[in-house]
Amino acid sequence: MKVAILGPRGTFSEEAARIFSPDAELQMAGDIPTVFEKLESGDCEYGIVPVENSLEGPVGITLELLLERQARIYGEVVVDIHHALLALPGTGTGDLREVISHPHALAQCKGFLKELGVKTRNFPSTAGAAREVGEKGLAGTGAIAPRGAAELYGLAVLEEDIQDVDANQTRFLVISREDHPPTGRDKTSVVIGLKDRPGALYQCLGVFAKRGINLTRIESRPSRKALGDYLFFIDFEGHREDPHVAEVLEELEGSLSFLRVLGSYPRFGQGGG
Amino acid sequence: MKVAILGPRGTFSEEAARIFSPDAELQMAGDIPTVFEKLESGDCEYGIVPVENSLEGPVGITLELLLERQARIYGEVVVDIHHALLALPGTGTGDLREVISHPHALAQCKGFLKELGVKTRNFPSTAGAAREVGEKGLAGTGAIAPRGAAELYGLAVLEEDIQDVDANQTRFLVISREDHPPTGRDKTSVVIGLKDRPGALYQCLGVFAKRGINLTRIESRPSRKALGDYLFFIDFEGHREDPHVAEVLEELEGSLSFLRVLGSYPRFGQGGG
Repeated sequence: MKVAILGPRGTFSEEAARIFSPDAELQMAGDIPTVFEKLESGDCEYGIVPVENSLEGPVGITLELLLERQARIYGEVVVDIHHALLALPGTGTGDLREVISHPHALAQCKGFLKELGVKTRNFPSTAGAAREVGEKGLAGTGAIAPRGAAELYGLAVLEEDIQDVDANQTRFLVISREDHPPTGRDKTSVVIGLKDRPGALYQCLGVFAKRGINLTRIESRPSRKALGDYLFFIDFEGHREDPHVAEVLEELEGSLSFLRVLGSYPRFGQGGG
Repeated sequence: MKVAILGPRGTFSEEAARIFSPDAELQMAGDIPTVFEKLESGDCEYGIVPVENSLEGPVGITLELLLERQARIYGEVVVDIHHALLALPGTGTGDLREVISHPHALAQCKGFLKELGVKTRNFPSTAGAAREVGEKGLAGTGAIAPRGAAELYGLAVLEEDIQDVDANQTRFLVISREDHPPTGRDKTSVVIGLKDRPGALYQCLGVFAKRGINLTRIESRPSRKALGDYLFFIDFEGHREDPHVAEVLEELEGSLSFLRVLGSYPRFGQGGG
């Protein structure tokens, strides 16, 4: 099974891919759009993309691509994020003049970095920062990355669990050309656009509420048309083939300006894979 | 009147400040938290901060600071965003090897930049990018910035209106120590947290709907506690001192896990300042 992920090796995306399928053949993509492209071109059967982090919120580019491209959501994986400070072997924290990492990782370790009192520099990925330090032999530069990146890039672990808050999780989506058949413990993701009238969101949510369907997430995003014009990414319990969900989707269709079903898939952590 | 804005000179924040008060004495802050600090220390009576863009969505740091700090919302200003490509006088677009700007500005001019076929580099602000090119005399480097930054930093305007989509507006908030007295054409901004039960958002929106109060914006943000736990930034029509709004706030208070009124203030573009 070929799975496209955001590279390089050693990222949290790799951890998500291993949880989804321990034996998958991973193909590294340089950015999130390339993960979608590897799926569309047939290079890979699945792709893994980050969609939200408990501290940083949604990953905008993933939401945009889900809206624009044809990929469907096949599954989800939630990864606990633990950041480590890595550097060349023999380096002490006092030797560091600079720490590099993905801006989200730097933000999540703000308290630790403030105490350390060094400059920071943005890098496109956490593992890429570790690779930069390892391959270029940058003395005096630390990288914030998953612990596992140390071994990959010949670095030492100076500190572990340096994130400010413990409740740090990233939710990844598994995308594919089709969504997942019903399992009985499913979720469905949709994007909706509201007609411009007062109470439109209230009415839409009422369609779910009157059937007792629980929303697990609602995320407003600018429609890119005008200020104050939003699309809503909504996740809720149930599969689009379940009769009560099919009814909801049919009822919504008539009252919305836009409706797209991104896919139905097993909820994470309940025997789904 | 002293107004703190995100500097350097020549940014869209300066344009917003001029719309709010043409004669204000502007104090430049290096980042958005500093705008809040200049207000709290008494250095300035007002601050201007960007809160959302029609293409890029919310400005997360502003929402976080509104939640954490004591500042109240006193007003709003909406600015039409027009990006220009600036470079040293005598430079042609064919001479450019790199274009620098704020990541949002680079993203908003993606199509133009792709055609130009040059590298891009992130900079903390649009006007800061223009200043960098002008003060360091960087031949071969262009800056995407407001047209007005050209004159300030001794640059030439190579192209105007290079943004991909025309509907590009940024909404700024005027913050102060108190919010604005009622004018009859007001808005109120609140942040709410929902109790964890199905239909909680639906019930909350029902409190507004049954009084015919129009929501102008709803923005979900991670609570930073757990994945799937959200706060909602909601703007609606009316002043917190209007009787029907006061009723809504009282009714919400009992059914929410969290409610904070960020302020009531005149709607932009209707005679308000």
